[in-house]
Amino acid sequence: MKYTIALLAGDGIGPEVINEAVKVSDAIAKKFNHEINWTPALTGACAIDAVGVPYPDETHEICMAADAVLFGAIGHPKYDNDPSAPVRPEQGLLLMRKKLGLFANVRPTFTFPSLIDNSPLKRERIEGTDLVFLRELTGGIYFGEKGRLDGGETAFDTCTYTKAEVQRLAKKGFELAMTRTKKLCCVDKANVLETSRLWRETVQAMEKDYPEVTVSYEFVDAVAMRLVQWPNSYDVLITENLFGDILTDEASVISGSMGLMPSASVGEHTSLYEPIHGSYPQATGLNIANPLATILSAAMMFEDAFGLHEEAATIRAAVNKSLEKGIVTEDLAAKGATAYKTSDVGDWLVANL
Amino acid sequence: MKYTIALLAGDGIGPEVINEAVKVSDAIAKKFNHEINWTPALTGACAIDAVGVPYPDETHEICMAADAVLFGAIGHPKYDNDPSAPVRPEQGLLLMRKKLGLFANVRPTFTFPSLIDNSPLKRERIEGTDLVFLRELTGGIYFGEKGRLDGGETAFDTCTYTKAEVQRLAKKGFELAMTRTKKLCCVDKANVLETSRLWRETVQAMEKDYPEVTVSYEFVDAVAMRLVQWPNSYDVLITENLFGDILTDEASVISGSMGLMPSASVGEHTSLYEPIHGSYPQATGLNIANPLATILSAAMMFEDAFGLHEEAATIRAAVNKSLEKGIVTEDLAAKGATAYKTSDVGDWLVANL
Ligand SMILES: CC(C)[C@H](C(=O)O)[C@@H](O)C(=O)O
Ligand SMILES: CC(C)[C@H](C(=O)O)[C@@H](O)C(=O)O
Repeated sequence: MKYTIALLAGDGIGPEVINEAVKVSDAIAKKFNHEINWTPALTGACAIDAVGVPYPDETHEICMAADAVLFGAIGHPKYDNDPSAPVRPEQGLLLMRKKLGLFANVRPTFTFPSLIDNSPLKRERIEGTDLVFLRELTGGIYFGEKGRLDGGETAFDTCTYTKAEVQRLAKKGFELAMTRTKKLCCVDKANVLETSRLWRETVQAMEKDYPEVTVSYEFVDAVAMRLVQWPNSYDVLITENLFGDILTDEASVISGSMGLMPSASVGEHTSLYEPIHGSYPQATGLNIANPLATILSAAMMFEDAFGLHEEAATIRAAVNKSLEKGIVTEDLAAKGATAYKTSDVGDWLVANL
Repeated sequence: MKYTIALLAGDGIGPEVINEAVKVSDAIAKKFNHEINWTPALTGACAIDAVGVPYPDETHEICMAADAVLFGAIGHPKYDNDPSAPVRPEQGLLLMRKKLGLFANVRPTFTFPSLIDNSPLKRERIEGTDLVFLRELTGGIYFGEKGRLDGGETAFDTCTYTKAEVQRLAKKGFELAMTRTKKLCCVDKANVLETSRLWRETVQAMEKDYPEVTVSYEFVDAVAMRLVQWPNSYDVLITENLFGDILTDEASVISGSMGLMPSASVGEHTSLYEPIHGSYPQATGLNIANPLATILSAAMMFEDAFGLHEEAATIRAAVNKSLEKGIVTEDLAAKGATAYKTSDVGDWLVANL
């Protein structure tokens, strides 16, 4: 088969980790007789530098024309302590999500047996953790009306959800739960927020269509606790945009494998795959960043966007082998062991697919 | 001295833990020659049952007339899975905060050497943790305009903050930081929210008045991660209402001493002291709930509301001794060791002040 993949390397370590994912994907394509046509495009700080906006129209067209988007990371320290800068890399991210209609962010958190001791949590707490968040990504307080009143002395943000937006996300949650242990947790703050009450009643009304799925409703503050206490008690969790932002990041560190966690953002028109880590500016250009999260994001792309299960499994098996053999970058290297370079890890995977 | 303390026992285990705090407070009063006049009042589910509203006017008047309020817990399962019930115990909590003007929720998280192994985190991660959240408690999305549109198919919540609200809370944060290690972290989501940008610029403008305090600005998602990774890297954190709700609960479980964590809610007119745990309905009436968080909340009250440092220190010393000697309820009892009853722990403390 032939696939066109938009390639958004972004900023910081983005280009380096993307490079390895391209290497591995090309090797997989060769092995399984596919053809990949990569179409690179600018986004983030590098796009601002080049053309003045963080998500140029040209990039958008390239993404829309592609079968999927592979994304690195964006963000640059020069924008960090100035939240009021007129143009910011993050705006590109939000615009991209909105314009591509990427309404569901899929964020798995799982453990690798060989890395379990990296977790800040005790082994018995984290062992067996295998959960997935579905975070609503194009609504809520991120995209509601916001502004200033009283000559700037009062600020406001509006969180809005429609029933249709909740249904669209929840449907994906129920479907995903059906392929797993059939447990779904709806995370909200229905004891305080009207939008949360809409979420809860909408999900409640959908339960009858998925009689096999056991649904629980938990408040966001309670989930923030239980994720640290018993992460392995969760399976699929669905939630609105802002709660998802906070909880998926919290979940990402409990596994101790942040540098390995892939993600997908799924929409009506296309889907986008990216590592959950950021642009890690301090490591830029040093060839030390861990490329595995991006490579596993490519695996997710093969599986979910193209339906290529064996291809995805082959990538994952090679990654597992590299972890077992310690062919890893410095963030994962055992004390005293050699740390491999970003590109070495990619090369090793290509040779061991 | 003479003190009038409004006593809001609330629901579930509230009355049981409050009982022990009263015992210990009375013993302290006797020892140090103070007189406490307790004025009990209804709030929560028990108030709904008795008079139809969760925070009756009479309760409000009792609180306003008191020198401080000691609070147990509220909430009852019969209200739990019905977020649209016309009257709910939590509404009482919000009304109470608003009407008493309790704008700053003070939530310490610290470790007890003897309990450190209860933490879900590894010892080296949690050791030395001693942080305090100041959560804004009477503004933000909790109290903004909310409702439905489009015949109920669209819901909205509004988050609003004024500069004055931010300054009031931040001032407490700077002052608290000055009495500790002079590190202040402002938690926001200034890369997305206008209210967060107001928070950030307001706090930035206050920095010059506290030249000795080192201020950092971190996004709420990053803090949700670092709290699990390196909780001991924080000192004082200030944040808006909803972020504070999520993060203080996350922080409360990392110490492994949830049943011991006190809190204060401070305002212009009065202040309220309460354990951070909930009403724990399953344990109601069993005399097994851990009273220490409520007793330590009473210590906070002696110290902060009445300026009675020695009295507070005496309570804390007795609590430490009870922990060392294993005079603890079942949640803290070592494997195989006897678990003491709620009232036994109170009695032991009174005898050992
Ligand atoms: C950079 C920021 C706008 C973004 C978000 O909050 O969505 C990020 O934290 C994420 O989770 O992808
Ligand atoms: C019960 C609920 C309304 C309350 C809140 O969200 O403030 C609780 O979670 C808390 O933190 O005191």
